[in-house]
Amino acid sequence: MLAEIKGINEECGVFGIWGHEKAAELTYYGLHSMQHRGQEGAGVVVNTGSELKGHKGLGLVNDVFKRVKFDDLEGSVAVGHVRYATQGGRGIENVQPLLFQSQTGGMALAHNGNLMNAHELRGELEGEGSILQTSSDTEVLAHLIKRSGEVTEDSIARALNRVVGAYAYIILQEDKMFAALDPSGIRPLSIGRLGDAYVIASETCAFDQIGATFEREVLPGELITISDEGMTSTRFAPRDKRRMCAMEYVYLSRPDSDVNYVNVHASRKQMGKELAKESSVDADIVVGVPDSSISAAIGYAEESGLPYEMGIIKNRYVGRTFIQPSQELRELGVKMKLSPVRSIIEGKRVVMIDDSIVRGTTSRRIVQMLREAGAKEIHVRIASPAIQNPCYYGIDMSTKKELIGANYSVDEINGIIGSDTLAYLSEKGLEKAIVKDKTINQGVCMACMTGKYPVKQDGELEIHYTSC
Amino acid sequence: MLAEIKGINEECGVFGIWGHEKAAELTYYGLHSMQHRGQEGAGVVVNTGSELKGHKGLGLVNDVFKRVKFDDLEGSVAVGHVRYATQGGRGIENVQPLLFQSQTGGMALAHNGNLMNAHELRGELEGEGSILQTSSDTEVLAHLIKRSGEVTEDSIARALNRVVGAYAYIILQEDKMFAALDPSGIRPLSIGRLGDAYVIASETCAFDQIGATFEREVLPGELITISDEGMTSTRFAPRDKRRMCAMEYVYLSRPDSDVNYVNVHASRKQMGKELAKESSVDADIVVGVPDSSISAAIGYAEESGLPYEMGIIKNRYVGRTFIQPSQELRELGVKMKLSPVRSIIEGKRVVMIDDSIVRGTTSRRIVQMLREAGAKEIHVRIASPAIQNPCYYGIDMSTKKELIGANYSVDEINGIIGSDTLAYLSEKGLEKAIVKDKTINQGVCMACMTGKYPVKQDGELEIHYTSC
Amino acid sequence: MLAEIKGINEECGVFGIWGHEKAAELTYYGLHSMQHRGQEGAGVVVNTGSELKGHKGLGLVNDVFKRVKFDDLEGSVAVGHVRYATQGGRGIENVQPLLFQSQTGGMALAHNGNLMNAHELRGELEGEGSILQTSSDTEVLAHLIKRSGEVTEDSIARALNRVVGAYAYIILQEDKMFAALDPSGIRPLSIGRLGDAYVIASETCAFDQIGATFEREVLPGELITISDEGMTSTRFAPRDKRRMCAMEYVYLSRPDSDVNYVNVHASRKQMGKELAKESSVDADIVVGVPDSSISAAIGYAEESGLPYEMGIIKNRYVGRTFIQPSQELRELGVKMKLSPVRSIIEGKRVVMIDDSIVRGTTSRRIVQMLREAGAKEIHVRIASPAIQNPCYYGIDMSTKKELIGANYSVDEINGIIGSDTLAYLSEKGLEKAIVKDKTINQGVCMACMTGKYPVKQDGELEIHYTSC
Amino acid sequence: MLAEIKGINEECGVFGIWGHEKAAELTYYGLHSMQHRGQEGAGVVVNTGSELKGHKGLGLVNDVFKRVKFDDLEGSVAVGHVRYATQGGRGIENVQPLLFQSQTGGMALAHNGNLMNAHELRGELEGEGSILQTSSDTEVLAHLIKRSGEVTEDSIARALNRVVGAYAYIILQEDKMFAALDPSGIRPLSIGRLGDAYVIASETCAFDQIGATFEREVLPGELITISDEGMTSTRFAPRDKRRMCAMEYVYLSRPDSDVNYVNVHASRKQMGKELAKESSVDADIVVGVPDSSISAAIGYAEESGLPYEMGIIKNRYVGRTFIQPSQELRELGVKMKLSPVRSIIEGKRVVMIDDSIVRGTTSRRIVQMLREAGAKEIHVRIASPAIQNPCYYGIDMSTKKELIGANYSVDEINGIIGSDTLAYLSEKGLEKAIVKDKTINQGVCMACMTGKYPVKQDGELEIHYTSC
Repeated sequence: MLAEIKGINEECGVFGIWGHEKAAELTYYGLHSMQHRGQEGAGVVVNTGSELKGHKGLGLVNDVFKRVKFDDLEGSVAVGHVRYATQGGRGIENVQPLLFQSQTGGMALAHNGNLMNAHELRGELEGEGSILQTSSDTEVLAHLIKRSGEVTEDSIARALNRVVGAYAYIILQEDKMFAALDPSGIRPLSIGRLGDAYVIASETCAFDQIGATFEREVLPGELITISDEGMTSTRFAPRDKRRMCAMEYVYLSRPDSDVNYVNVHASRKQMGKELAKESSVDADIVVGVPDSSISAAIGYAEESGLPYEMGIIKNRYVGRTFIQPSQELRELGVKMKLSPVRSIIEGKRVVMIDDSIVRGTTSRRIVQMLREAGAKEIHVRIASPAIQNPCYYGIDMSTKKELIGANYSVDEINGIIGSDTLAYLSEKGLEKAIVKDKTINQGVCMACMTGKYPVKQDGELEIHYTSC
Repeated sequence: MLAEIKGINEECGVFGIWGHEKAAELTYYGLHSMQHRGQEGAGVVVNTGSELKGHKGLGLVNDVFKRVKFDDLEGSVAVGHVRYATQGGRGIENVQPLLFQSQTGGMALAHNGNLMNAHELRGELEGEGSILQTSSDTEVLAHLIKRSGEVTEDSIARALNRVVGAYAYIILQEDKMFAALDPSGIRPLSIGRLGDAYVIASETCAFDQIGATFEREVLPGELITISDEGMTSTRFAPRDKRRMCAMEYVYLSRPDSDVNYVNVHASRKQMGKELAKESSVDADIVVGVPDSSISAAIGYAEESGLPYEMGIIKNRYVGRTFIQPSQELRELGVKMKLSPVRSIIEGKRVVMIDDSIVRGTTSRRIVQMLREAGAKEIHVRIASPAIQNPCYYGIDMSTKKELIGANYSVDEINGIIGSDTLAYLSEKGLEKAIVKDKTINQGVCMACMTGKYPVKQDGELEIHYTSC
Repeated sequence: MLAEIKGINEECGVFGIWGHEKAAELTYYGLHSMQHRGQEGAGVVVNTGSELKGHKGLGLVNDVFKRVKFDDLEGSVAVGHVRYATQGGRGIENVQPLLFQSQTGGMALAHNGNLMNAHELRGELEGEGSILQTSSDTEVLAHLIKRSGEVTEDSIARALNRVVGAYAYIILQEDKMFAALDPSGIRPLSIGRLGDAYVIASETCAFDQIGATFEREVLPGELITISDEGMTSTRFAPRDKRRMCAMEYVYLSRPDSDVNYVNVHASRKQMGKELAKESSVDADIVVGVPDSSISAAIGYAEESGLPYEMGIIKNRYVGRTFIQPSQELRELGVKMKLSPVRSIIEGKRVVMIDDSIVRGTTSRRIVQMLREAGAKEIHVRIASPAIQNPCYYGIDMSTKKELIGANYSVDEINGIIGSDTLAYLSEKGLEKAIVKDKTINQGVCMACMTGKYPVKQDGELEIHYTSC
Repeated sequence: MLAEIKGINEECGVFGIWGHEKAAELTYYGLHSMQHRGQEGAGVVVNTGSELKGHKGLGLVNDVFKRVKFDDLEGSVAVGHVRYATQGGRGIENVQPLLFQSQTGGMALAHNGNLMNAHELRGELEGEGSILQTSSDTEVLAHLIKRSGEVTEDSIARALNRVVGAYAYIILQEDKMFAALDPSGIRPLSIGRLGDAYVIASETCAFDQIGATFEREVLPGELITISDEGMTSTRFAPRDKRRMCAMEYVYLSRPDSDVNYVNVHASRKQMGKELAKESSVDADIVVGVPDSSISAAIGYAEESGLPYEMGIIKNRYVGRTFIQPSQELRELGVKMKLSPVRSIIEGKRVVMIDDSIVRGTTSRRIVQMLREAGAKEIHVRIASPAIQNPCYYGIDMSTKKELIGANYSVDEINGIIGSDTLAYLSEKGLEKAIVKDKTINQGVCMACMTGKYPVKQDGELEIHYTSC
């Protein structure tokens, strides 16, 4: 939701469960907890014992499943997906898991990530007579797997070796469920247990939601196979140093999730603390932009000794049926999602914490809102470095032309958004907030801030096609 | 929503605007910002210039108005209402504003509160041949006004002098809009300005929502009249000391609202601070139960020097179409609205802040959830005194039999909910947190905690009929 | 539906059942069968044993009840209503049965008809301090009954003696159900039995729908009382000669209903036969305008010896979500509800049978459609006399200014609608088609055709207020 | 709808338009008029000029398109489809037109019919590494076309030569629209003109709906190509004698459609006349089962001289939200879709005309209903020969085991359904009613009645896979 305002959008969440008689229903709850990762479509494929069978639809998880009887989706194995859709691919056919029926058995795929060479692979496949019905990368992988023959560890590994990018896959066929992570481990993917059942999910909040416990991360370049015989692991690619996407911590993941062994709320609070150490300022109160910046604001307050106050409120009831105020009404002062709290703000020197700035328009609007509510000074502190580069690994961000951090200096941005002072967290500060133990966390991908891309195709960066 | 869990429910919010060409649309946004005060029905009545005309429906404001064209509700004067419905009165006929057409002109009423003598008045009216179509107190007042003759200051004042209770009314006829508050000022009602227009609302967050500015509180026993000639004020009853409902601060109002000149978030934070002073405990982290207890938790953390952590998460996407997990799944561990954050809670001595305890079932569930997430110790701190008595003034609380605070000692409750230690804020502490300046705030009604009821009917407390 | 095209609209259907454990559910089916009598609202009130309780809503019966659990409407007595709403009274508050709760017991009313002196009575009631919440006549009667005291045969009879018009009422209180018909018996109301249960309905098709059997008509000026002691009958007014509304036969009722002992389809077929006798013409085929004119067309064909052909088709799937073609598309030839069958029409001399002409616009459109489909000659034959006067008895027709029959001669109308010849059925012909046995049927009200109004208020005709 | 009762179901309708700026909107209206051919899904693909783009969904045409803005589907070329779904293929992925995007251009297919060798072809394709996402025959053809190379007349012709069955296809690529009919012409497919635009549709009622005029039938084995250069025709197979499906006349098509130059209503009326010649009976009235048997009943009445009466009524308002009466209520007499008209039926000797008998359950129910309504004698006359064999050509009928005509003699069926006498129309009678001019109509497929299948696969009949 705020995503729309910001222009940063997660692209999808995946979920899989093996060995629980309520598989489809648990998948529903798991997807529900990952709703923030994709709000435009959701689906579940279940193995009924005799076939793979699915239900999917456009919209929120609740809406897609509100009339589903889970008795019609019986089976102890299920895969699910929530989808964020880029402009070009909003059709129902792109909603995942993709399900392919064949006379030798079905296959379902759920994907989070982006393939940098999808366009080339698609051209190659079509040249050989393949017909693709979706515009998604996921179908490309499906064809590559099928070209390699049966759906086995081998055929999947061969297919994965053809693709370049950042990805987390769950693949289901009649006897087995597979999970795979790209060689740099840019996207998150965790393994949990619920009694005897195995659970795979993009975020650990899905485990908490269903009462499962975290077991371990899927490793970079690892291919997990789960069957009635249990779980085995192979490697389809040499294991790179893990480069977990920093934006998962900064903005995308739920605060209660642990991403690569680090709690997201804790990392955000630490970002706030690092920010206070780096860029302290004389002020009266600390205010966070809800929801994603609250943790950082609390951290900043704790470190600086300034009181944290609830100076900006987010309206909880804004939803799909909310009638957006017209331009005329907005100019009259009608608020949309965020409102300032005059009695807290008035006459105060405010440190306003936000997690990031993309185009700058939202920041400018909030700063103006605080001014109108009587703030004496506004010191904007951003809990991450400036975003200056596009993401090729599955996050839908604005183009370089639109990224304010790519086109203006910090001083200029301070002027544009109308704050008194502006400071970003340093790259080092962000890394310190996330990577607590190099032997476990290894590193993060901060390419959108630093321009240092860990994965390239033939040494080149390609414009990305349609991800997830 | 949490309201359902707790068993405390606000009963309604009112809104009125005089003198703005977008009156109905602004009323929609105003009601929207007060959605938390009533989620079961909403309505708007507009004065089109030639008639009073309304639209109302069951459900959330968004749902009720999603297909409304505001062009069909043209006019510069409007009154609106959001409704919480008690068990017995869920019908559409009870949704307000009630609109009465007559050959001499229409009248619309919107009400927040409860009349203690509604039952007697109803019996009296029916005995005289009146027919009432709703089960709401509001219709009783309408009949009393009409009995007194035309809809004027006089007839309204006479009618108000017949009723006993806590109430905030907005009454509309063709030429005038009236607003009235009970002689003890138990319910909130504020006056704002939007350019030349007058705005009346239960909570000041509605002013912020539409860009209006707060002007002043309606006073106890005051009757406001707004017309094209401007605003005038009379008194229909001697002005008592104001006894604003303490629960508005503790739980009911939005944190960004100012209730009787005191910001709700600030008062909650102060409750947390007072609580820390009164009942400190050796612990590792402070955790609040979202959403209503976050402010108090932050205050407690600030005062105690303990870090505030986001140890409990509320799922934002749970809505009306959410499929509630079956008992079986809940026992398996499937969470509903709240989830603990294991990586924050595990191994910690937790101070868990909640705003109040009603029946104790929710508290017990949250304590258990924290235990399962690995909390070493759980110290529950409640940011208000124990609720021991029913409310006769418009808040729907559990009956005395269900109120855990009315039937058990603090020690016993500590045992029932399974915490290591339990402490409530003292009455004095609560009062200190709310009443900053006795000349302005005067006092609060804490009858549900203290049993000292400021308003009685013939010196007796009556079982309340159907409020709001 | 066609109703909208025509501009003749039935105003409501009533249903009551006493003594069946599935009362509410049977009422649903009964209302369903009378859906054609009112498509804008529906409601049921059931006596649960301890209270009267209702469910109502705007829209079709199916839509209003699609989420209702009939277990929540338990009880062996129920009253129901389907409503047609005139422009001014579309609100949910006008949907019937109206339900009035009071401390001495509830009362529910369902009404089909129109009171000519409703406006005066309403003024009188308001002058005495009564508050009316709806714009419907039914509420006026409710107040009159209550003014007379308890809800008894006496109080109802007294109230009915105050009203002037055409009406069929079902009134429910805790112990009794009442049914009453105006002294001229202009509106239909029948009594049926389903085992031991009593059933009352506007049309006998409701009996067939639920497997009940027709017992007898309610008589003009009769007041029926049904209780656990059985059914009794009194008379609240001297019994006039019955003047059943002729339009019930011509257009309004379902063909399978018997209205005042005469089957509607049979009467329509006879209208066609009389029309053939009166106005035969040399032609190739007989075509009826679906649905209401099919019976008459078959009668005309049978009498004339010409073949009946399905030359005009009605699209069954046109519903509320149908996207109406724009003017541009309609001019391009896109059809809406009716389509001609070219291969039947082309080159033929067509007798086109319609039941009536109101404004003439529909007739002109159909004639043009037949011309474009290649008809060589078009002879329009109308199975009733020209409508020249407004109805004051509960049928919503166009105003006199709009009635083509009131402003033009038959020759002129023939020119306006573009037919080759035009003929109406004579008054005598219509009467012969309906009144088979004067001792039973007595007579019909043809005031809208003849201007002879059987019921007047103080010898005057009043403009009608809001009926039903 | 009645379809569900009967167990005969049409499988789909196709529509295409080339050269009209309102292409998508006209397709909506065209599909709407063919709603009876498939009620479980609908879709439109439009050529926007730059790409093929579609909208599809489950449900009725109205529901699928109710929120579509046709401005989002701009373009002068469109293809549409209404779908009937067999049990196994209800998913959204099977809703047509199927749309295949590729880097060399898109292709859309809409299909009505059934391929007898779909299963073999599918196995063959999968063996070569193809991935199919739907269970429909249409995707098989798509793969065959792509295997042959580009989407051209040649590649389509080659693909069509691989399939065996009954089919009508519309295929769209960026520059051309193709239409093809199987070599025996079993399924209907007509060409029309709307100004300069070309229109293709399964039924001519779609032409009437949009104001287009019929041009000619697509011929057996013909491949039509439409482009901006106009329309050309080739032949992909030698032209067999046309064997139009007799059930299109008996039951499936709309009465206003002309199927292979014969009006459906006229043929049905003639079936009734032939039936009266073959199997006259001494009786009082002729009654048809609505809607499909009305034409035949009128024909029977005309030929026999008996009066046609509306003895059975179909409730027009039964829809998807209709609450089906429970078994208990049905036994009490609550009717569903059809009701008898007692005042017409009682004491009469009734000739009841139905178009066909499939399992016999509906016939038995109607006969019983007429008995309960007081019919003295019931003579069932069926306007087609007994159905004794399954259809392999695209009509979903009950299996042989369920077909009452396949398992019982006429005498036995008479006993089972409870009629006094029973007679079917002869094969010769049916043919006479349909084939007016052998040079034009050639012949009909009556395989389901006669067992003489015009199309076999390698001389064998195969169990059909999933059609349409």
